[in-house]
Amino acid sequence: MNQHLEHFLNTHKQQVEDALRHYIEQVEAPAQLKEAMAYSLLAGGKRIRPLFLLATIDALGGKVEQGLPAACALEMIHTYSLIHDDLPAMDDDDYRRGKLTNHKVFGEALAILAGDALLTHAFFVLADAAQSFKPEQQLMMIKELALRAGPAGMVGGQTADVLGEGARLSFDQLAYIHAHKTGDLLVCAVRLGCYVAGASEDQLVHLTRYAREVGLAFQIQDDILDEIGDEQKLGKQVGSDRGNQKSTYISLLGLEGAKQALSEHVALAKQAVQAAGVKPDLLLALADFMVSREY
Amino acid sequence: MNQHLEHFLNTHKQQVEDALRHYIEQVEAPAQLKEAMAYSLLAGGKRIRPLFLLATIDALGGKVEQGLPAACALEMIHTYSLIHDDLPAMDDDDYRRGKLTNHKVFGEALAILAGDALLTHAFFVLADAAQSFKPEQQLMMIKELALRAGPAGMVGGQTADVLGEGARLSFDQLAYIHAHKTGDLLVCAVRLGCYVAGASEDQLVHLTRYAREVGLAFQIQDDILDEIGDEQKLGKQVGSDRGNQKSTYISLLGLEGAKQALSEHVALAKQAVQAAGVKPDLLLALADFMVSREY
Repeated sequence: MNQHLEHFLNTHKQQVEDALRHYIEQVEAPAQLKEAMAYSLLAGGKRIRPLFLLATIDALGGKVEQGLPAACALEMIHTYSLIHDDLPAMDDDDYRRGKLTNHKVFGEALAILAGDALLTHAFFVLADAAQSFKPEQQLMMIKELALRAGPAGMVGGQTADVLGEGARLSFDQLAYIHAHKTGDLLVCAVRLGCYVAGASEDQLVHLTRYAREVGLAFQIQDDILDEIGDEQKLGKQVGSDRGNQKSTYISLLGLEGAKQALSEHVALAKQAVQAAGVKPDLLLALADFMVSREY
Repeated sequence: MNQHLEHFLNTHKQQVEDALRHYIEQVEAPAQLKEAMAYSLLAGGKRIRPLFLLATIDALGGKVEQGLPAACALEMIHTYSLIHDDLPAMDDDDYRRGKLTNHKVFGEALAILAGDALLTHAFFVLADAAQSFKPEQQLMMIKELALRAGPAGMVGGQTADVLGEGARLSFDQLAYIHAHKTGDLLVCAVRLGCYVAGASEDQLVHLTRYAREVGLAFQIQDDILDEIGDEQKLGKQVGSDRGNQKSTYISLLGLEGAKQALSEHVALAKQAVQAAGVKPDLLLALADFMVSREY
């Protein structure tokens, strides 16, 4: 891994972990609800979205630590979506990141409620971060998060995914699902970073494009890893998409076609960074990291 | 019903309905998700929380229509909580307000997602209402909503309710559940009204107390109606709490004790209104309405 990126990830991933723990400890709630929230939130995820958010701030010359409330809010949203996605009525998964899923440990009712609690608390964290921001800035960020995470964003993508299950999807349908189900939170991460650091309208446009392309690359890599990844590193079985006859970039483009699409989207992402007129190193390295990750 | 109240409810309930429909129509989302959101949101509820919010504004001499975004956001939160509460993993209810519950019509996965979407969109609506408010005011309202609806509020109360199921609860445990599961959204309604109308800190304190007392009265009345209400008017079976051996105000205080507690809380609510130094009529009439309602 690029040294600059490695240093950045090492430093700031721990900051994100600490901040997440802090936010959960502050919650006043029944002990079991707090435990269920913490179980999934502090399960040692990759923290990709928070790190994109913080890297965007760095690229724009802003103060990285200022992004922690937004980074944590975003990770709460991401985590709630995983808890709800894993439910029996949805993907019915028993394991996530090598650990039992939330409902397997706490039961379905608590898992639904822990998800609802994390989703709601994300907005509290953002709205409560008044010391770091102008109120106008905070409102923009809250609106951004609600838009990208809501029915027009992540929940819309997840719905399309659920409705498309078992069906043979067109490339456009698959692209819609990915743009929203996984793409929108990455776009949100980068745009929140832009708001924190006070990016220009022009930079916001280019960096949004960057995030969109990286999000696609990320999803294609996910499909590739599901096909040929290392079960140990992934913490889950491979080949499940094929087993479920799920439409993926592999089923639509073949493995080689998917790998080529992946490279193309990474190249487009890099062009967008160069066009944005920011310190490019970290964002370029993050785009490469998406392609080379093994889990 | 008090004429002043009747006129107020007739006028403003329709405004709330129209605004809710408008907000749903504006959502860009897969058609089935929008349909599932609208199904429950536009199912003709009593709109009690929005009406308390608007009545508080009126009592404070504010412009009632200014409260519509907050009133709709609050009703979206209330509606999502009903959708998730009705799920098989929670209360497993087939009917709500005399209609099939969301998951009975759209399936469990869509019901979970429609709930998530309404919850998220509530924050979009509040954060997007910039034309009516100062940004500081909006942030206070978003924070209030997230606090009262989240783990420290409604979701915390719902968790305590789920965990206490089948157990014989103490009066304190029951009071905790009601203060949060149903009470916090009513408190939120009145406090949002206070923020919209620019109440003084003193008024905020008294009117919060008003809402807290009305919320308790409301819940006691719910328990009474479950015991002796009219199934036709309620749109659901009565006696289900007793059948489920659920701890209620009736099981703890007996029917007469519950009726007395109801009167006491209404009296305390009225004292709080008088202490707040606002136009009292509407809020007093609403408190009485809580006691006399039959559904």
